[in-house]
This record gives sequence, structure tokens and C-alpha cells, in this order.
Amino acid sequence: MKQVASMAISLGLLGFGSTLGFASDAPQERIVRLAELEIFPEQVQAYTAALKEEIETSIRVEPGVLTLYAVAVKDHPDQIRLFESYSSMEAYQAHLQTAHFKKYKAETQKMVKSLKLIETNPILLGSKP
Amino acid sequence: MKQVASMAISLGLLGFGSTLGFASDAPQERIVRLAELEIFPEQVQAYTAALKEEIETSIRVEPGVLTLYAVAVKDHPDQIRLFESYSSMEAYQAHLQTAHFKKYKAETQKMVKSLKLIETNPILLGSKP
Repeated sequence: MKQVASMAISLGLLGFGSTLGFASDAPQERIVRLAELEIFPEQVQAYTAALKEEIETSIRVEPGVLTLYAVAVKDHPDQIRLFESYSSMEAYQAHLQTAHFKKYKAETQKMVKSLKLIETNPILLGSKP
Repeated sequence: MKQVASMAISLGLLGFGSTLGFASDAPQERIVRLAELEIFPEQVQAYTAALKEEIETSIRVEPGVLTLYAVAVKDHPDQIRLFESYSSMEAYQAHLQTAHFKKYKAETQKMVKSLKLIETNPILLGSKP
């Protein structure tokens, strides 16, 4: 299971360990991080545009960026939640050094009222294959 | 874009709107929900087993359950976060009525110290295709 998962990741596939689309106990290398942001209300539109660009670029050009899910809490467009997964710690560290991530951070620095980063241990990442 | 995304969902594919794997502005039907749970520490192992079974079954048998990601906050195995996505509100409502979900709820009812459900508006759900 672990080997299969590692292969899938290195091939730039979904990174899930089986045809059913589960990444679980197995891929210990997989990094999952959550982020909770509060954006200054008047900056929500500009922030969202910058975030979308950053996500699109990261998914397109970085093999180790597996998912970048961004949602806003319902009725609170200034409260953003991110669910991020990377194939390894190296992939995450590399992401932080990319030009597009640095551009996003610089552009949005003054739009962000608060930022909480949450490291996690994946239990089971189930998705459609 | 909206039509393409809807087609992908109805075909039971990833539900993403393009070959790059994005579900964004487009699929307004897509339901994304977050959950934050605190589990009684002595029940974490039993809760995790029940949760895994529920996720595996839901992904396998319910076409409208697209992702069920479960993680624990690092160094706090009793703090669980879920990222759930469904192809539509109907799919979500149907999920709540399944035998496996009801079994999970009944089994875990007394293991859960607190449960916070968060409705969201997706901004951009980026993932590897």
C-alpha cells in the first residue's frame, strides 16, 4: 500500500494509495495543512483574485502540490479556509520558495487581518478516483 | 465552464470543471462543508475506526460523495477536522439518510465531546487532475 501510494505521488497522479482514492495510514510523507484567514472586508475581492491565481499556478506547475482547496465560511466572505496537501515536506518547502507563492504573499500581506496555520496528521483522505 | 463542470459531476468523475482539476466559480451545486470535532481522549481510537469505515463506505457506494477528508490537528489527536464535498444538496441530504452514516452517528454519539459544522461557499478547489 505504501509503495503504491509513493508511486502514484511520484507520477504526479492523485497521490492516493488505491483505486478507490484513499490516502490514509499509508503515505506518511503526505503533508496536509489547514489555514484559517480573516481578510479585511474591503479587500476580499482583491484577496480572492490573488488567491485564485496562486492556486491555479501552483496546481499547474508544481508536481508536489496535490490539492489547494479554498472556501469562504457561508455568510462570512472575509473568513477563508484552506485545505492544502503536498506530496512531501520537500514539496511543501519548495512551494514556499516559488515566485508565484512569494508574489501572492507580497500582494496579500496587507489584506490579511489574521492567519492561523494548522499542521495535521491525516486520518483518511477519501475521494472519488 | 458551468456546463462542463455539471457534466463532470453527473458522470461521477472528480466533479472538477476542467482538465486541470479546478472546481471554482462554476459548480454552484457543489456543496462543501467543514466539521470540527473534539473527541473524548479515551475514545479517539474507537472514533477513528468508526470514521474510517464511514468514509470508505460513503466514497465507495455514494456517487454524490466526492471527498471526505479527515485529519487530526498535529499533537492533538482528539481534535478532528473534516473537509467534505458533495455533488449537490440532494447528494448531501441522501448521504445523511444512508444506513452507514446512521450507523456511524449512533456508534460515535457518545464519543464526541463537541461538534461544529461549518457551511461554506467554495472559492476554488484546485487539485491534480
